[in-house]
Amino acid sequence: MGAFLHSRWVEPPAGVEERDAGELAPGFRAAGVACGIKGGGTPDLGLLLCDEPEPGSAALLTSNAAPAAPVRVCRERAELGALRAVVASSGNANAGTGPEGYERAVAMQEEAAAQLDLAPASVAVASTGQIGIPLPIDAVREGISMAAGEIAPGRSTELARAIMTTDRAPKHGTLRAGGVTISAQAKGAGMIQPGFATALCFVQTDATVPDPEATLRAAAATSFERITVDGLQSTNDTIVLQATGAAGSELPAGLLDAILLQLALDVVEDGEGATRVARLRVGGAGDDAEADRVARTIANSQLVQTALHGRDANWGRIVQAAGMALAGQELKLDADSVEAAEMGADSQEADLALELGRGEGEALVYFSDLSCDYVRINSDYSS
Amino acid sequence: MGAFLHSRWVEPPAGVEERDAGELAPGFRAAGVACGIKGGGTPDLGLLLCDEPEPGSAALLTSNAAPAAPVRVCRERAELGALRAVVASSGNANAGTGPEGYERAVAMQEEAAAQLDLAPASVAVASTGQIGIPLPIDAVREGISMAAGEIAPGRSTELARAIMTTDRAPKHGTLRAGGVTISAQAKGAGMIQPGFATALCFVQTDATVPDPEATLRAAAATSFERITVDGLQSTNDTIVLQATGAAGSELPAGLLDAILLQLALDVVEDGEGATRVARLRVGGAGDDAEADRVARTIANSQLVQTALHGRDANWGRIVQAAGMALAGQELKLDADSVEAAEMGADSQEADLALELGRGEGEALVYFSDLSCDYVRINSDYSS
Repeated sequence: MGAFLHSRWVEPPAGVEERDAGELAPGFRAAGVACGIKGGGTPDLGLLLCDEPEPGSAALLTSNAAPAAPVRVCRERAELGALRAVVASSGNANAGTGPEGYERAVAMQEEAAAQLDLAPASVAVASTGQIGIPLPIDAVREGISMAAGEIAPGRSTELARAIMTTDRAPKHGTLRAGGVTISAQAKGAGMIQPGFATALCFVQTDATVPDPEATLRAAAATSFERITVDGLQSTNDTIVLQATGAAGSELPAGLLDAILLQLALDVVEDGEGATRVARLRVGGAGDDAEADRVARTIANSQLVQTALHGRDANWGRIVQAAGMALAGQELKLDADSVEAAEMGADSQEADLALELGRGEGEALVYFSDLSCDYVRINSDYSS
Repeated sequence: MGAFLHSRWVEPPAGVEERDAGELAPGFRAAGVACGIKGGGTPDLGLLLCDEPEPGSAALLTSNAAPAAPVRVCRERAELGALRAVVASSGNANAGTGPEGYERAVAMQEEAAAQLDLAPASVAVASTGQIGIPLPIDAVREGISMAAGEIAPGRSTELARAIMTTDRAPKHGTLRAGGVTISAQAKGAGMIQPGFATALCFVQTDATVPDPEATLRAAAATSFERITVDGLQSTNDTIVLQATGAAGSELPAGLLDAILLQLALDVVEDGEGATRVARLRVGGAGDDAEADRVARTIANSQLVQTALHGRDANWGRIVQAAGMALAGQELKLDADSVEAAEMGADSQEADLALELGRGEGEALVYFSDLSCDYVRINSDYSS
């Protein structure tokens, strides 16, 4: 396996081939430019275009009750099942910015549509970065015009770079199987416990996807929905899938799941300050929802995260968090209920398990450790 | 006001006097000794005795579904309304230790009863420290015998020292009002979001307390139940109130509340790695339970805690956490909904507020910041 599908937890379909991560699926063009939101010539504006006039598409958006303006614009002014393009900015989340922020997100959508000669409703808008600061819309408009001029096949890397915030590296991959290609870009870092998607993720394929929304929802449910860095659901979570169908074949089973799970794991691995990743399997819960609640309480426990950081196989902290998640009930847990040895081992990917002995419910969750760097990054972020 | 009642958020009853914090309420004796759980001659075993043969008493115990052995012993083998004595150890929580741990907690209770010539059921047992390690019961038994030999009036400081773990200083206070005295000791540090009490807190008074349980529950509801350091509910939370009634007067209104709130704030202020404390008032929620959920989600947000640490008046992170707590609903929040200026100011005690504009529900919560020291303390704790 090459550089992209590197986690032992990802199980790609048979015959999958990795391609250069810079390659976009056929029928897609992209660009990433620096328009000055971040300053210093750092890319902060991405544009993605599907050449096929009637692609299948779907988008999942954060369920946060205070969503960012671009999320509201996607929900209210975009046809999520017929998206031709995505315009995305980084460095400023355009969240908590009131009616003026909403107008600016609309302006982003309209400018991209005008530059690409599309209907505004066929353009999804996404932003990521600091909350509560007015979006510099003139710079963004100029960036969109610049990006529209540079848009070209094979610019997955440029797109992935243009959506980074505190990410240490661009996150993207391209896979080929069964005669079709799928490419995807994502960004993560902090405020990561998606309701169904990370801050931003874009997926392109030339395969046919009969029910894009159901397919995307199912793949997100086993990937981006299973991760947490700091337990915080973003105001900007957006994941977009576009499928041209030009290759004439259906997406092979497991291909979307593999690329999304690897990207989700890349997000966890590159969580703010993260040095290690763990996968926790909770079994024997009353039902799956209970297992999920227990798994997330453990994964988001600062004491479990610091134990993971310190390579301390501290199963007691896992039991404490499980007991907190099920407060008021009675658990019989001891050292034998927990597999935590890998938490204390040298591995970068630690496999953990907890057996509750209450029923058949189970859940998986992936999480990162808590280090001083998380504190440093987030104490200084806005300065 | 003297050194103990130092928070601007505590409102003691009129005429309250602070006494030497080392003074115990009349009719109580205590001791703190080093029995070797922690090693290095550090105090780790405390004993508290009420001389009055029939005091009123009450105890609140953690609702964690995996409680420590001493909590189970209190629940199953102590008469919580007729407690004469408390035996407490630190350095080892006797949690996650199975049936053998339970037997050792019973042995602690029986040894203390034998040494003090009491019925075992009149002795409460409490432990705090590392989870999952067998309690060195021979050392503890010897410590109890030592402590019984040293027990004397006015040893509040010794008792407070004997229950410390990562606390930077002993936490205790003594107040006098309306002809009665109340003294209390507490410990906190990490794993702090009590279901109704911190890790350990003991309160003594010579006043009459007609319904000790209801009184204690009400006072805890506005103090220890309102604090969080890391959002983690301990396996060992225990709070004990003992009242002799020897002074012949009832406890003045507000006196128990004041001593518990100040101790709870001392616990937050001395949270692991903490450098600042915030009080957050959430108003305008659908109901009080919703306000509580929003307030705790904000208080436990690592991004809010790091912003507090970095003196960054980042109201956007408060809005994000509120939106996450109310995911799936619709909030209209902007900069005017939040008072966060003190988060960016120099004050040690930052007053914050959020107005949701949904109804009449409100909640208060006190929390500490997240610093690198929290990570350091908890990455190394067991080494």
